[in-house]
Amino acid sequence: MENHGLADLYRGYIACLNTRNWEGLASYVSETVCYNDQLVGLEGYRQAREDEFRTIDGLYFDVQLVVADKHTVASRLAFNISPHGEFLGLPVNGRRISFFENVFYEFDENKITRVWSIVDKAAIEMQLTQD
Amino acid sequence: MENHGLADLYRGYIACLNTRNWEGLASYVSETVCYNDQLVGLEGYRQAREDEFRTIDGLYFDVQLVVADKHTVASRLAFNISPHGEFLGLPVNGRRISFFENVFYEFDENKITRVWSIVDKAAIEMQLTQD
Repeated sequence: MENHGLADLYRGYIACLNTRNWEGLASYVSETVCYNDQLVGLEGYRQAREDEFRTIDGLYFDVQLVVADKHTVASRLAFNISPHGEFLGLPVNGRRISFFENVFYEFDENKITRVWSIVDKAAIEMQLTQD
Repeated sequence: MENHGLADLYRGYIACLNTRNWEGLASYVSETVCYNDQLVGLEGYRQAREDEFRTIDGLYFDVQLVVADKHTVASRLAFNISPHGEFLGLPVNGRRISFFENVFYEFDENKITRVWSIVDKAAIEMQLTQD
């Protein structure tokens, strides 16, 4: 059974990102958030997302799949974007690329405390090769 | 709340893989299973897993995190393995590498029908660079 509470909260977080509501992010993300086992904190997390919106044209977090239990959300996100310059160390240089991210979020007191993300870099490499 | 039924079923599937119980796989995987949007079928799926066990030393599916709802399981798997030759197109050649896979499984009538997997290739590339 889907935990609608946490799934709904997560969709609120995604809407917050997609509308670039940087002030609102504190409602969803813990001050001590860790990203892939690195402590980045709310400020570092917000800065990273702001940087992405500045350097990636067409950035939109498109939720394809959400699975939630009491403390954890798993999400499959689709992207169809044009990053300036390098992206994940690849010379994308404004080309349009499409790929997925599979990501887990651990919540504590209704805020994201830990994120474990994997982006499908291999899919991007394949698209750059085909160009 | 975790859906223990599907989470438990998933752990049975993983035990089936880890014990190389190829005959048992039909209890967990649909005849028409799709892997990353490609129809591979049970036979193709089993063959791919068998090939992995033959070409990767120390292969073990280590479940770090499971989130389940009524039809879907999301899992974060840890690996610490030594693939022979190339792995994901990278010249691993028997070196020991550690990485994660974030993967979703859709179930129909208690069998896996669709799998969407992303392996952290960037983490492997970083380890090969450091060697």
